[in-house]
Amino acid sequence: MSAAILSAATVADAIARLRERAARVHSLTNSVAETFTANVLLAAGAIPSMTINRDEVPHFVAGADALLVNVGTMYPRFTEAAEIGVEAARRHRKPWAFDPVFVDRSPPRLAFAKSLLAQEPAIVRANRQELAALIGAETGDEAAERFAAEHGFVVARTGPIDLVTDGTRSVRVANGHPYMAKVTAVGCAVTALMAGFAAVGQDPLLAAASCLVTAGIAGEMAAEKAQGPGSFVPAFLDALHLMGPADIAARMRLS
Amino acid sequence: MSAAILSAATVADAIARLRERAARVHSLTNSVAETFTANVLLAAGAIPSMTINRDEVPHFVAGADALLVNVGTMYPRFTEAAEIGVEAARRHRKPWAFDPVFVDRSPPRLAFAKSLLAQEPAIVRANRQELAALIGAETGDEAAERFAAEHGFVVARTGPIDLVTDGTRSVRVANGHPYMAKVTAVGCAVTALMAGFAAVGQDPLLAAASCLVTAGIAGEMAAEKAQGPGSFVPAFLDALHLMGPADIAARMRLS
Amino acid sequence: MSAAILSAATVADAIARLRERAARVHSLTNSVAETFTANVLLAAGAIPSMTINRDEVPHFVAGADALLVNVGTMYPRFTEAAEIGVEAARRHRKPWAFDPVFVDRSPPRLAFAKSLLAQEPAIVRANRQELAALIGAETGDEAAERFAAEHGFVVARTGPIDLVTDGTRSVRVANGHPYMAKVTAVGCAVTALMAGFAAVGQDPLLAAASCLVTAGIAGEMAAEKAQGPGSFVPAFLDALHLMGPADIAARMRLS
Repeated sequence: MSAAILSAATVADAIARLRERAARVHSLTNSVAETFTANVLLAAGAIPSMTINRDEVPHFVAGADALLVNVGTMYPRFTEAAEIGVEAARRHRKPWAFDPVFVDRSPPRLAFAKSLLAQEPAIVRANRQELAALIGAETGDEAAERFAAEHGFVVARTGPIDLVTDGTRSVRVANGHPYMAKVTAVGCAVTALMAGFAAVGQDPLLAAASCLVTAGIAGEMAAEKAQGPGSFVPAFLDALHLMGPADIAARMRLS
Repeated sequence: MSAAILSAATVADAIARLRERAARVHSLTNSVAETFTANVLLAAGAIPSMTINRDEVPHFVAGADALLVNVGTMYPRFTEAAEIGVEAARRHRKPWAFDPVFVDRSPPRLAFAKSLLAQEPAIVRANRQELAALIGAETGDEAAERFAAEHGFVVARTGPIDLVTDGTRSVRVANGHPYMAKVTAVGCAVTALMAGFAAVGQDPLLAAASCLVTAGIAGEMAAEKAQGPGSFVPAFLDALHLMGPADIAARMRLS
Repeated sequence: MSAAILSAATVADAIARLRERAARVHSLTNSVAETFTANVLLAAGAIPSMTINRDEVPHFVAGADALLVNVGTMYPRFTEAAEIGVEAARRHRKPWAFDPVFVDRSPPRLAFAKSLLAQEPAIVRANRQELAALIGAETGDEAAERFAAEHGFVVARTGPIDLVTDGTRSVRVANGHPYMAKVTAVGCAVTALMAGFAAVGQDPLLAAASCLVTAGIAGEMAAEKAQGPGSFVPAFLDALHLMGPADIAARMRLS
């Protein structure tokens, strides 16, 4: 039962800690997602940095609270930076979240993503197609749970209902709005925000689920103000900034 | 006569097919334009992908319905990706649209753009200065028409009045708003959208002209809601998402 | 006394000249900041270009009125482009503005930034932490003034109160709004706009200070219309576009 694991108070507390700590999230992401990711982090109360220069990544990761790796627009210099960043995160014991975007669309990308799965990400966020590519078969909830248990990370599979699982515990989040799929890089930015939640919480499962509740509620609040996917974007950032415990208590929907 | 070639029903039908097919447009574009291009495609009902990794481009083009090549922020790895992408598009018989942005400002860029013109783009979209640089002289409508006829592609020359020509037929589109020139990458994004229209229509001339009518009307609808070029951006994306046959019938202006 | 140096009429005149000239600012900046920087320049009446291709940078700088160099997401090809751009700006006697973003976070970045300080930027804009890293010590106003005097450039240190100094004269600008720190790349974009102001004025001190007044007032006007940092962005661009002499006269606050 999702509700036994995650309460609205837990989510509200996670947001409060993220804002109070102003958690630094170094984000190695694709160029399409960079600006929106930075603005999502800032609106939610975190502090982004984005450089992928190989000489700088260790310094930025050392000064950050968490790392986001998105398999991105996958240039050689990017994959190298990702490997350096992950190594630095592990050395400094910072949690890192992984977004294997579009691995279902490109074999070189899938191979690279699989190599990173062995590097102990705290959380892997993917949609159903991407997760199926990683696991190697069309998958249901049980396969996702097994995958999480085998690797020792949290799997956050996003879609109309999000599944967050560490293999033992599972939370299903029903919040969200279809406009979130009509704006580029929403998923990428949410994975970066998950890294921020992981930085301020002990339990990656609760961090990932709290982040998806937060983002989903922000999407719902934004859609109420938006005329379409364009006006949804500023309203989504506003909602991340303005959201309070009452919004979460009133709107959180687990399933 | 433009009106004999393009009707409002043709435009509305092109939009409906783009949305129904959710046409995939792989977009090799400059880093300034990437995010906005992706959001324009999504708002209009298409699906963007953007990677320029040389190993991935053939996979993405093979899975796409059309290709956009923008001469972009022209790095060596980008020009290589563009050549690989164009080769893949031709091999898989996917239409590709070309945006020679700023070729009038830089000789290396002009040389590269000219090399791509021989690779059978379906549509070349440029402003008057860029087109003059490509043709090699200050140009009027006849020169644009000759250029299209000689190369066998459609030329879409954008400005206050857009000229779309394949050398035999010409359509002039009067829709649009000055704010479209006060926001970066509008032209780049419109060329990507043209690739999407080309994917769902047999006739590149009608695809290019339908796209310019669509974008121009979206610009007009957005300007009515906007206070300036900043609020124009979300309103433009909203309009692309919301536009229906009645908007096109009421607003389309050919000249 | 700031007020003896900078009047509202001076700021209004600088904006009018920027718009009339439609000053071209070639902007070598980080990928996170590119799109927003281009839109800030366009909204204010300037014309952006952004390529960092080494073969093209000299052509674009030659055709521009000013150059912006942001130490950016500091790739090898970027640092090379920056050096080529600065060399071209000096050869063509175009003013260039420098943004040493995050030099306090990364030793390689600090070393590169210091190497550029010797290349005669007209203006260096930095926040307090970045400036302290450049100077090599925690700094007050006197240290900033000495730093400017020694190097012969204008230092614009931004924060709740901005300090603009050439070592002899100092202006303190109190305009601005906290949302400007909740949106990525506002500082980066403002430095690009400073390059535009420097292109249309003889005095870099007045250019830098006029730009900060303009941006600060735009921030205040935008915050009055915004619900949060998301809706602040389009409103900020609208305000840059719409701002007139009356807004400046009514709102300018020096200290």
